[in-house]
Amino acid sequence: MNKKQLFEQIKFKKSFLCVGLDPVLENIPQHLLDYEDPIFEFNRQIIDATADLCVAYKPNTAFYESRGLKGWESLLKTWAHIPQNIFTIADAKRGDIGNTSAMYADAFFNEEKSGMSFDSITVAPYMGKDSVSPFLKYEDKWVILLAATSNEGHHDFQLLETPGGRLYEEVIRVSSEWADSERMMYVVGATRGSEFANIRRLAPDSFLLVPGVGAQGGSLADVCEFGLNDHCGLLVNSARGIIYAGKGEDFAEKAREEALKLQVEMEEILEKAELI
Amino acid sequence: MNKKQLFEQIKFKKSFLCVGLDPVLENIPQHLLDYEDPIFEFNRQIIDATADLCVAYKPNTAFYESRGLKGWESLLKTWAHIPQNIFTIADAKRGDIGNTSAMYADAFFNEEKSGMSFDSITVAPYMGKDSVSPFLKYEDKWVILLAATSNEGHHDFQLLETPGGRLYEEVIRVSSEWADSERMMYVVGATRGSEFANIRRLAPDSFLLVPGVGAQGGSLADVCEFGLNDHCGLLVNSARGIIYAGKGEDFAEKAREEALKLQVEMEEILEKAELI
Repeated sequence: MNKKQLFEQIKFKKSFLCVGLDPVLENIPQHLLDYEDPIFEFNRQIIDATADLCVAYKPNTAFYESRGLKGWESLLKTWAHIPQNIFTIADAKRGDIGNTSAMYADAFFNEEKSGMSFDSITVAPYMGKDSVSPFLKYEDKWVILLAATSNEGHHDFQLLETPGGRLYEEVIRVSSEWADSERMMYVVGATRGSEFANIRRLAPDSFLLVPGVGAQGGSLADVCEFGLNDHCGLLVNSARGIIYAGKGEDFAEKAREEALKLQVEMEEILEKAELI
Repeated sequence: MNKKQLFEQIKFKKSFLCVGLDPVLENIPQHLLDYEDPIFEFNRQIIDATADLCVAYKPNTAFYESRGLKGWESLLKTWAHIPQNIFTIADAKRGDIGNTSAMYADAFFNEEKSGMSFDSITVAPYMGKDSVSPFLKYEDKWVILLAATSNEGHHDFQLLETPGGRLYEEVIRVSSEWADSERMMYVVGATRGSEFANIRRLAPDSFLLVPGVGAQGGSLADVCEFGLNDHCGLLVNSARGIIYAGKGEDFAEKAREEALKLQVEMEEILEKAELI
């Protein structure tokens, strides 16, 4: 999916919501344990209940790998169940030397080889250009590079001063020479108020993937105040707040209610910004 | 495996060789394609032919994930086939927010959940302390943190000047407060001559995992001149130079010959340093 198509979806659905598909066996409704693949069944029902309210789904690979082979199988089935017109993000935070990153690109972009073909993958920047470029060789696929993350540990290195500014600023500046805003997005945590405005100045045209709204304490209004651009430019992720909204047999309905609340809020924001 | 046990293995085998298990279907001997799981069969024969010459095996997860479900299965079988007294490294370069890194720790350290329990995992430092600590909760398991990598792209960010020194120096300095040399190692590319001496000053007691000898152009002699400490302190990785030494039915024998050359060289180095 390219940038124009993504913006079209945002306008059509009046939403820039991304739903994080990060289920843990211990936290899903217990009646699902009767299914052969409870994790997939959980995702399937969440997807079916929210697909008209969001523009992206983001499974975090850790939640699947932690269950070994059967987890990887749930991930494959989950990817296959997501409707074609919804942007898919493999939240994998990969990155390695060139020939190895090419293997990761196969893992997440090359359906023939791996059984999956996400629209995008999150990548860690520490190893530099040749660790990122292999992901950029696939047409209409995206790299979502970690810039300023939402966790406490972002202080340790991302905020270090370098000759070109803070490290996360340098990551954005340098990486913007590798690909433009048609192929690269950045992860910017919703909990990063002042950095958010700064990042929008550094990457005026880029889509930003924003985790941390809800459970991690970020505010949607703040994010939009600093983050919206003329093609929206935001994918705001919510995982726990939506997928664990209910604990009973009506969990998918409850998830829909929470997703709807966010969608309505986003519609107002998009209208106010005259984007729809 | 703890630090003392690892050094014991090094002295016993007169080797600090790590064999990188990074097979690609296109590059393995073609007669193996008749096996149900050619990648596992390749690894099995390489392991059986080299197990007395090396102290560690390091499968890079990308090479397995790229093949989807069947790749993950090969990884599981490969891990299970490595003898107990050999140090295992999941070269996965993971790292995410705390609760998600805990899932990655399950994936690679918790056999009950995932079917695998490596001795160590490589971790990317960009997200800071809480992305690393969950891996440190497992007794006798190790984090191998990326410091100065062997690829061209290490210039982009790792060498940036920060108030505390270059970024990779700051990564070592800050992370050494999270765990000592009994629980944390660092990745230092063999191609990093001058940085190598510097890193040994910053982390005098730590084991360093050194890729880049051989195919990537680093020299074993240089690495040892700057890198050896009083308990060896080095795990030198070779992948392509060993696993692709032969292309025919005798590939495992050829791999053994290459591993033996390195082991003999290492034995001389250990003797000269009076470590054995």
